[in-house]
Amino acid sequence: MKPTPDAAPLLAFGAHPDDIEFGCGAVLARETQAGRKVHFVVGSRGESASNGTPAQRSREAKRAAAILGASIEFIDLGGDAHFEVRAAHAIKLAAIIRRVRPALVLAASVVENQHPDHVRLGQMVRDASRLARYGGLKELRRLKPHAIGQLFFYAVTPEAEPADLGRVLVDVSPPAVIARWTQAMEAHASQMRTRNYVELQLTRARLNGLRAGVEHAIPLFAADALVVDSLAHIERAVRRF
Amino acid sequence: MKPTPDAAPLLAFGAHPDDIEFGCGAVLARETQAGRKVHFVVGSRGESASNGTPAQRSREAKRAAAILGASIEFIDLGGDAHFEVRAAHAIKLAAIIRRVRPALVLAASVVENQHPDHVRLGQMVRDASRLARYGGLKELRRLKPHAIGQLFFYAVTPEAEPADLGRVLVDVSPPAVIARWTQAMEAHASQMRTRNYVELQLTRARLNGLRAGVEHAIPLFAADALVVDSLAHIERAVRRF
Amino acid sequence: MKPTPDAAPLLAFGAHPDDIEFGCGAVLARETQAGRKVHFVVGSRGESASNGTPAQRSREAKRAAAILGASIEFIDLGGDAHFEVRAAHAIKLAAIIRRVRPALVLAASVVENQHPDHVRLGQMVRDASRLARYGGLKELRRLKPHAIGQLFFYAVTPEAEPADLGRVLVDVSPPAVIARWTQAMEAHASQMRTRNYVELQLTRARLNGLRAGVEHAIPLFAADALVVDSLAHIERAVRRF
Amino acid sequence: MKPTPDAAPLLAFGAHPDDIEFGCGAVLARETQAGRKVHFVVGSRGESASNGTPAQRSREAKRAAAILGASIEFIDLGGDAHFEVRAAHAIKLAAIIRRVRPALVLAASVVENQHPDHVRLGQMVRDASRLARYGGLKELRRLKPHAIGQLFFYAVTPEAEPADLGRVLVDVSPPAVIARWTQAMEAHASQMRTRNYVELQLTRARLNGLRAGVEHAIPLFAADALVVDSLAHIERAVRRF
Amino acid sequence: MKPTPDAAPLLAFGAHPDDIEFGCGAVLARETQAGRKVHFVVGSRGESASNGTPAQRSREAKRAAAILGASIEFIDLGGDAHFEVRAAHAIKLAAIIRRVRPALVLAASVVENQHPDHVRLGQMVRDASRLARYGGLKELRRLKPHAIGQLFFYAVTPEAEPADLGRVLVDVSPPAVIARWTQAMEAHASQMRTRNYVELQLTRARLNGLRAGVEHAIPLFAADALVVDSLAHIERAVRRF
Amino acid sequence: MKPTPDAAPLLAFGAHPDDIEFGCGAVLARETQAGRKVHFVVGSRGESASNGTPAQRSREAKRAAAILGASIEFIDLGGDAHFEVRAAHAIKLAAIIRRVRPALVLAASVVENQHPDHVRLGQMVRDASRLARYGGLKELRRLKPHAIGQLFFYAVTPEAEPADLGRVLVDVSPPAVIARWTQAMEAHASQMRTRNYVELQLTRARLNGLRAGVEHAIPLFAADALVVDSLAHIERAVRRF
Repeated sequence: MKPTPDAAPLLAFGAHPDDIEFGCGAVLARETQAGRKVHFVVGSRGESASNGTPAQRSREAKRAAAILGASIEFIDLGGDAHFEVRAAHAIKLAAIIRRVRPALVLAASVVENQHPDHVRLGQMVRDASRLARYGGLKELRRLKPHAIGQLFFYAVTPEAEPADLGRVLVDVSPPAVIARWTQAMEAHASQMRTRNYVELQLTRARLNGLRAGVEHAIPLFAADALVVDSLAHIERAVRRF
Repeated sequence: MKPTPDAAPLLAFGAHPDDIEFGCGAVLARETQAGRKVHFVVGSRGESASNGTPAQRSREAKRAAAILGASIEFIDLGGDAHFEVRAAHAIKLAAIIRRVRPALVLAASVVENQHPDHVRLGQMVRDASRLARYGGLKELRRLKPHAIGQLFFYAVTPEAEPADLGRVLVDVSPPAVIARWTQAMEAHASQMRTRNYVELQLTRARLNGLRAGVEHAIPLFAADALVVDSLAHIERAVRRF
Repeated sequence: MKPTPDAAPLLAFGAHPDDIEFGCGAVLARETQAGRKVHFVVGSRGESASNGTPAQRSREAKRAAAILGASIEFIDLGGDAHFEVRAAHAIKLAAIIRRVRPALVLAASVVENQHPDHVRLGQMVRDASRLARYGGLKELRRLKPHAIGQLFFYAVTPEAEPADLGRVLVDVSPPAVIARWTQAMEAHASQMRTRNYVELQLTRARLNGLRAGVEHAIPLFAADALVVDSLAHIERAVRRF
Repeated sequence: MKPTPDAAPLLAFGAHPDDIEFGCGAVLARETQAGRKVHFVVGSRGESASNGTPAQRSREAKRAAAILGASIEFIDLGGDAHFEVRAAHAIKLAAIIRRVRPALVLAASVVENQHPDHVRLGQMVRDASRLARYGGLKELRRLKPHAIGQLFFYAVTPEAEPADLGRVLVDVSPPAVIARWTQAMEAHASQMRTRNYVELQLTRARLNGLRAGVEHAIPLFAADALVVDSLAHIERAVRRF
Repeated sequence: MKPTPDAAPLLAFGAHPDDIEFGCGAVLARETQAGRKVHFVVGSRGESASNGTPAQRSREAKRAAAILGASIEFIDLGGDAHFEVRAAHAIKLAAIIRRVRPALVLAASVVENQHPDHVRLGQMVRDASRLARYGGLKELRRLKPHAIGQLFFYAVTPEAEPADLGRVLVDVSPPAVIARWTQAMEAHASQMRTRNYVELQLTRARLNGLRAGVEHAIPLFAADALVVDSLAHIERAVRRF
Repeated sequence: MKPTPDAAPLLAFGAHPDDIEFGCGAVLARETQAGRKVHFVVGSRGESASNGTPAQRSREAKRAAAILGASIEFIDLGGDAHFEVRAAHAIKLAAIIRRVRPALVLAASVVENQHPDHVRLGQMVRDASRLARYGGLKELRRLKPHAIGQLFFYAVTPEAEPADLGRVLVDVSPPAVIARWTQAMEAHASQMRTRNYVELQLTRARLNGLRAGVEHAIPLFAADALVVDSLAHIERAVRRF
């Protein structure tokens, strides 16, 4: 039941060079392994973080994307720690959606009490997913409108997990997936100095795995109600202790 | 991507003879059409309703189940309009789960402000889905423990749709599915006298279809977070106007 | 119990030329029929939509307002699909509130997951309803402060209905009201090409009518707790199936 | 805009002899003053309270009801501090609804974290308001089915105010209303010994009055969406500071 | 800032022999270590679980309580997997509260979607904490009324963590505390056969520790708003990544 | 258990010259009385209010701060009634946090339906509390990063009290505290002309006091989960009537 190589691509947005990897890297490792094309769009070079230079962080992000089998590009949304919700930014994101034409879009959740860049990116990606469909937007006229299939939010930390959206746990148990994910997180060497980011994410994935009755799992949150033809593909649920 | 004929069965619980049909009959029509075995368990004979005798209502329910391709049985949970949350009832429901051994269970939602029998049935089915797993329950020792895959709630009316659970819209657009569903609802002839039940449900399914970008759709609500191996099967979402 | 001709006017805000009509046109038809003055303020000319030119859409909106018995004006809030929450915009909206001096204000709901212009308009109208009262705002000094009675949100689509605000269903069953509303929606001929907007709204109004025990009904959402002198006027509720 | 003397009666349920008075007595004083018939049903004689004998408390409740212009009856729901959700109790309550045939029903809110008798009474009154409509309920066959107009919940304390239901503030500012209410609360002399019940309620009514821009106000919570013909009667809202 | 040896005791309720240990054992280890008396009340002997006999499970629970420095007693609430919300049960729990006279009470959370015994115990303990105060309850007349200080809910699994109550993370980082907690969980040897209970709890405590910026932490949920004299003791919060 | 004189300071932010005093002045009076240093940052001079000139209002605020024992400074966030969420503003607020180095930060709640300046200030203070920690923010390089202990929101009115955050009631009963608070509120003489601000706050504090079983109390709302070493300091809760 794996996506065939010609499945529509997955487009993942992150505010900082390591957000995508830490928030849902294992999911992406699993999707690229199954043959789906994945593209990363990163909204800053992490220039306000306590550690790492912009150049260093860009290099780390490129390496991490390569490990996960994804392509990557950097865009400017006002600068690290300076994101604001702007129509022009949302339109820029919509242009990327039109260009990449993904079935699935991933972005940081819009839970308000987290790094402000995360929530604003999430809000603007949600808006952009709509704007990508509107034919009359003059800034985007050169690009054919595109309707995505679904927008999933990932949560960079447990605090950013929305309580009010349908939760989907993606089973990322294959050892090769976890290995690749760990390697991609560790590629962000500049961020390893102070806090236990990698341990946080692996602990979290293990806890979610235990809840789901598998080795490791990553939670995603559907922006909109799922639409299915059959119940056959949604027959598994969290196995409660 | 249809379930094969040997897919684990689906078990649907209703408080009254017409609840399953009105709440999610089209979903079941689609599943039986795709080859899945479906079994109905009805907790009363509708003996407190304004219209119809118990005998008449049982006959109507049997005919409706047959139209939908499902088997059916009646159990006693205290009588129509007399349901109470009782451990003995939940254990009775768990015994049925162990006997039928379904992958999927459907029950009325547990939104409190609706017919009290609906919410209590939903609560007891949720409990029963756990009890079915506990090996030491002495009333059930003769039956092998069984862990279901997922419990979905259906809503008999829009008021019963939970706002806090992940919503899944099932596309029930094939004309044969709608025709069979309509026929099954109309089989409850005794309930057609006073209110527009059939119109309510068809209007609701059309509205949900318009939201999902299909002809007709039925909402289900996952009791627990979904677990998936791949995003490939959850790529569609409500297409917002 | 109809409003007398000298009742304070109702002021309705829409982001795009057809939002007011699609979201709550039938309510306004009923109010103007009962003698209340209604004024529309539209924040763009729909210039980013897939269909219709700005000139065409303005003409359509004017015709629709006339059909509903309302006056109309257009203002600039940054352009279709370009709305941002700006103090200057909210003050512009507050100036209109001071000029029109309505008892009731209607605006698109502030549910976040919908067209970004809708939610931002709703947020700014909510702010404007406060700013209209503050005597010292220098941009508004030429206009006497005004306190509105109530702000109701309408929802352009079912997805935009807030779950956390008191819901009021307005009975719009009189055939003349529905006829006028349908005509006003159809006046937006440029929007009829692709999706079933009119069917969506009529289906939705019928479903809400069935829930309320009437022919057709439109939901509104009170921004603030209602204040009443007597329970005599709020004696009816949704008649649950 | 007062109810005429032949308006359908209001039926108020309380778990203990003073709940109705403390929770919404001023609203009832205002309704009886306007000519509406009001009937109290009290589910215990307060026999588990720290102060007052059952006989004393019944006398106090009768006097309080008389002061408010209401009739009163006592029923048995298992005893003070012993309420359980039972179908038989709900049917007993439904029988009273069929006998009194009210337009409006009031009951304690169903917020869970309060005196257990309050929440269970509220739940059973909500159920009873449905059961009163079902024609086939054999225990009630001697009484004609009755559909109420609306069920409002009152909150005996601020902790019991539901955050998820539409809030209506009833203006109870007329000095005669407040005087009568205060007198009715003070009629429960046995409860005056330990805590500041009367001060709690008057302070709360004053705070709600200040929020609403009137002298005193009492919050009620609509169990179901309001249905109105016109916006003319719901033009006032909380006047925010 | 440790409680002095004469601090009022802590009373912890569990539905099954291992619930308290798995849900909040580390908190209790820390409290007994600091000199507080802790008493466990267990509502069944786990007789419906898949593994372990009642005798074996009681022995395990006694050993675990001893390891944590707590006393323990067993009561009958209808039997494992047979709990029902009954006034008589709540009164039995209230009698224990009056006897033990705790400042703090702990019980399983009342999140509905978990083992039914857990939620019902939590509901009945919440009720019992009120009933313990009511002087007139005749079943309890031999015991002096008692008002507890606070009721905290613990969550046996992450699924049982309430999203709507104030969350308090208790730092349980001292190695001696973790060692004792682990030992107490492992005392339930019969439950170690099938699932990774100990790993689940240690993983969860580590994740909560990482969120709080400490080694390990356990979440508790306050049933009612905290009351403090000074902000000096609530100066620390989750340190977000 | 009072903070010693060298406790880390408390930093309170207000949008207008009287917000801090009205929203939580009594808490601050209690903290300064216990020896904690408190500093006010006010984001406007109230220049859009109906009453009072900027000069007059600044004088009033200085006097009120002095009465409460706090220092005060004014900053520019775009002007009264003109606040917008801007990265530059949040960075300005973060600079103040780095300079003052508080353990506790207080700001207006982020409940959306209130004066827009309040909610935007609250949002930006929440963001600033994060930005203060990020070492690479070039605008702040001259100031050492600082991590606060906790951010509490205060509510200027009851409508602004968040329902979804942990509520803490601070006991402000000492008569000297209430006297000083009242005096500080009355120092805003220009705001006394039209509405009953002081009565609103004292009534609210009395109601919260009655709920907590003390004379007067003020609610605060924790932005993040509390972290504690021991349950000894959180043993008191709202004493429910």
